[in-house]
Amino acid sequence: MVDSSSDPRPSEQFRHLYTPPKINGSFTGKHIITVEQFDHRDLQTIFDVSARLRDRVTAHDRDLVNLCAGKLMASLFFEASTRTDMSFQAAMRRLGGSVVTASNGVQFSSVYKGENLADTVRAAGCYADVIVMRHSAIGSSYQAAYYIDRLNERIVTHGAVISGGDGIGEHPSQALLDLFTLVDLKKGADNLTITLVGDLLYGRTVHSLAKLVALYGVTNTKLCFVSPASLRMPDTIIDFLTKHNITHYETTDLYEVLGESDVIYWTRVQEERFARRADYEAVRDNFIMTPEVLNQAKRDVILMHPLPRKNEMGTPADHDILDANPRAVYFQQMENGMFVRMALLAKVLGVSDADLL
Amino acid sequence: MVDSSSDPRPSEQFRHLYTPPKINGSFTGKHIITVEQFDHRDLQTIFDVSARLRDRVTAHDRDLVNLCAGKLMASLFFEASTRTDMSFQAAMRRLGGSVVTASNGVQFSSVYKGENLADTVRAAGCYADVIVMRHSAIGSSYQAAYYIDRLNERIVTHGAVISGGDGIGEHPSQALLDLFTLVDLKKGADNLTITLVGDLLYGRTVHSLAKLVALYGVTNTKLCFVSPASLRMPDTIIDFLTKHNITHYETTDLYEVLGESDVIYWTRVQEERFARRADYEAVRDNFIMTPEVLNQAKRDVILMHPLPRKNEMGTPADHDILDANPRAVYFQQMENGMFVRMALLAKVLGVSDADLL
Amino acid sequence: MVDSSSDPRPSEQFRHLYTPPKINGSFTGKHIITVEQFDHRDLQTIFDVSARLRDRVTAHDRDLVNLCAGKLMASLFFEASTRTDMSFQAAMRRLGGSVVTASNGVQFSSVYKGENLADTVRAAGCYADVIVMRHSAIGSSYQAAYYIDRLNERIVTHGAVISGGDGIGEHPSQALLDLFTLVDLKKGADNLTITLVGDLLYGRTVHSLAKLVALYGVTNTKLCFVSPASLRMPDTIIDFLTKHNITHYETTDLYEVLGESDVIYWTRVQEERFARRADYEAVRDNFIMTPEVLNQAKRDVILMHPLPRKNEMGTPADHDILDANPRAVYFQQMENGMFVRMALLAKVLGVSDADLL
Repeated sequence: MVDSSSDPRPSEQFRHLYTPPKINGSFTGKHIITVEQFDHRDLQTIFDVSARLRDRVTAHDRDLVNLCAGKLMASLFFEASTRTDMSFQAAMRRLGGSVVTASNGVQFSSVYKGENLADTVRAAGCYADVIVMRHSAIGSSYQAAYYIDRLNERIVTHGAVISGGDGIGEHPSQALLDLFTLVDLKKGADNLTITLVGDLLYGRTVHSLAKLVALYGVTNTKLCFVSPASLRMPDTIIDFLTKHNITHYETTDLYEVLGESDVIYWTRVQEERFARRADYEAVRDNFIMTPEVLNQAKRDVILMHPLPRKNEMGTPADHDILDANPRAVYFQQMENGMFVRMALLAKVLGVSDADLL
Repeated sequence: MVDSSSDPRPSEQFRHLYTPPKINGSFTGKHIITVEQFDHRDLQTIFDVSARLRDRVTAHDRDLVNLCAGKLMASLFFEASTRTDMSFQAAMRRLGGSVVTASNGVQFSSVYKGENLADTVRAAGCYADVIVMRHSAIGSSYQAAYYIDRLNERIVTHGAVISGGDGIGEHPSQALLDLFTLVDLKKGADNLTITLVGDLLYGRTVHSLAKLVALYGVTNTKLCFVSPASLRMPDTIIDFLTKHNITHYETTDLYEVLGESDVIYWTRVQEERFARRADYEAVRDNFIMTPEVLNQAKRDVILMHPLPRKNEMGTPADHDILDANPRAVYFQQMENGMFVRMALLAKVLGVSDADLL
Repeated sequence: MVDSSSDPRPSEQFRHLYTPPKINGSFTGKHIITVEQFDHRDLQTIFDVSARLRDRVTAHDRDLVNLCAGKLMASLFFEASTRTDMSFQAAMRRLGGSVVTASNGVQFSSVYKGENLADTVRAAGCYADVIVMRHSAIGSSYQAAYYIDRLNERIVTHGAVISGGDGIGEHPSQALLDLFTLVDLKKGADNLTITLVGDLLYGRTVHSLAKLVALYGVTNTKLCFVSPASLRMPDTIIDFLTKHNITHYETTDLYEVLGESDVIYWTRVQEERFARRADYEAVRDNFIMTPEVLNQAKRDVILMHPLPRKNEMGTPADHDILDANPRAVYFQQMENGMFVRMALLAKVLGVSDADLL
């Protein structure tokens, strides 16, 4: 692992030293670090472009590869993430761009000489037009953006950073694909009961999705949060929702909201989060999705999950049954990840709307 | 390593749950899992296309990159294999397609979150048009094809699986390149004595090659099998040959068939396969190819080997002498791997014969 | 690590068995193994092409991707090196070529079956047009070139080897980018005092740069070498410079030459090189570059460094101050690595000067 501690400042501090710019209708060259950069119009742009790109991929449109031909993406995954990593790579390549990764995995390459995060990011910034980075330290994507801004003053090429997740901090592209899937399948985000289930305290994806619903703006939609009492949604997120006038409701009991939910976003509760095994045992049945549980939900509910999954969706046999249920949309959600990341890359790399829509 | 055991069914069981479709003249979109999918016409198509693509690569034909432009291959090598991995990647790229691999190696990426084989394969299936997979478990490629078929019902993109080898099970693209090399250099497969040497019990490549000779169909050709008695060709393969009326002959003594062989396919006998060292010592000289041994073969014999090689071709000094002998064709064989895989990828991805021949 | 010892001859011996050909105005298909292959004209060609390619990348010239479309580079990094690896990959892709790496890192892939360096290199040689290799063994790039020459006699495709560094031996592309940066920023290499600082005994980059200055040819330029007494420039390099009539001066005291230097090339002195800690402590202040030290240099000095850096540039806080100083050009130097490697790849792959200049 790259030693971010050799920086005089911990990664987390860069959340104060660097403020990501609002998109405000213009994506070109901007770092993508947090969902808070987006407003309704920006989100709608990404969603419209994503849907259009999905159509074109499905139709085997060979002109897609002209959109980002000659552009280069560096993939710096200091932490493994099959889906985020592969979908960003696939997205860039479907647009005709190229991808550079460290031949032996960046975590091995960089650690070898003990170089710090900033120096590795700067190397990528010298060679690539866009840098997708995932790192376990909160604030690491802010840190990368901070140093790339300074680097860009000194060199002729200019890279932009797109966060692929920073620890339990933020994961903006995941939130974008989650909300796109929801809006796409539910024909919008209004008049819905959206239920987020699991470890809502440490769950990065649920934080970003809740905020993004608020930034997208909804009418007559309610967010329900189902978690163990010790793992409830942080106050910062609750305050964010209140400020944006988003109706929300917290409970520890899934069955209180299961029947009215239009969208269920399922995540894992890790046994390790509990001090005593008995505390975990007492609540676990609320947090295992099975075919029987899903049968108690609305006929047209959609069941989402960021994947990968473990026993929070029961046994492998349960997986097979759930997977065959049309209400389980997590594979479409996973596939949408590629289309949303294509949209994000194309916009950041300056492809014109005329070529995208 | 991805934990295939978290699947309720072991990989091997999928050899019964999933039946690869016969090619029967149409490759487009089909999984390539076993040599048994091919008949003579299918093999001839692959060989004709391979030879034509070799000519075009040699002539630096720049139009090759239009054949699979915009297509995406995911490379999932849960087990390392320099030649198979690199030649599939090179094949896809020479056709103008792109390749996605996990930035840090899929075995590290997936194990990180303990996800199972099916979920990793599904991720690749969401992003790529074709998935090349190698895994140590027998039946793993059947398992991948099984799950991708189910996934394809739920998403808009459609991937096909091409096996890059499943443990000691099957390795169809290796058999294709082996038979192509033989047919190419011997102007067909008729009127030959083809001798397979080494560990014929556990040797995946010799099983697949023997079957493929039968499926190609031969006249006046004999297969000779030279192995230690404890490592003879399995009855399943022998029965397969008998059913296809292929003349075959088994012996433990290389010198019995060396002088009449037109093709010698050499593989390794591992000392670890023997219970007692003395048993290995007793037979080892039959199973070390050296310049002196090769000198006792026919003037126009071709010596093949799937590579990599160790001491079954003597000392490094022996390697140098053998490598310089025109009868040693294993480097051409290795190079043909790229052309045959180009043919396979192009056909599975639906490139028309008009563009290929 | 690939076991080069399974070769009967150690890698180092290949420095005698293989003599890299002089470029002598023609790069196409030649292995690039040592700076000694280049003369002034060859260097000027690389520098002119590098500058022109930099302009075209900066101008987002989309025709760049036609230069090496359809060409394939294999990246064999048996030893990690973030910058060399990523910049070669980026270079190839900006020219429109493709890159093949082992999916799991070549050091893992090859070691898995214990194959030796020659066999791994030959596999790459069967599939790729150019092989970029880095390996920790001195002479390993000579060894690769030796075996590829023999392979090329047997197969239809033909690869060339470009060294990405062989242990403490040579690193020609680094020397090229170093001298290009110097010539580019100082409008030539004449009338300069060029000071190389650090561990000059084991430092591969300083050896290659010193030789390259001599091969480029300079008028009224002096090379100054600042190192601990136990780590002075080897006699072989000193003799090379003397033979080429290059004025040079050795000292252990940085301050003796700091004020007159036009170029300072800084490298690290490792504490581990000293038998006693006290010996290291006695000299270390001469070998830590800080903002205060740089302030004592000429106003228009350029401070170069091959990167990555550790405490030889002081604390992380010192890094930040130095990085903001326009006299610190190591980020431009790093960026130039991509342009110089683009030039090298294009020339070796036979792109015509008409297309490059």
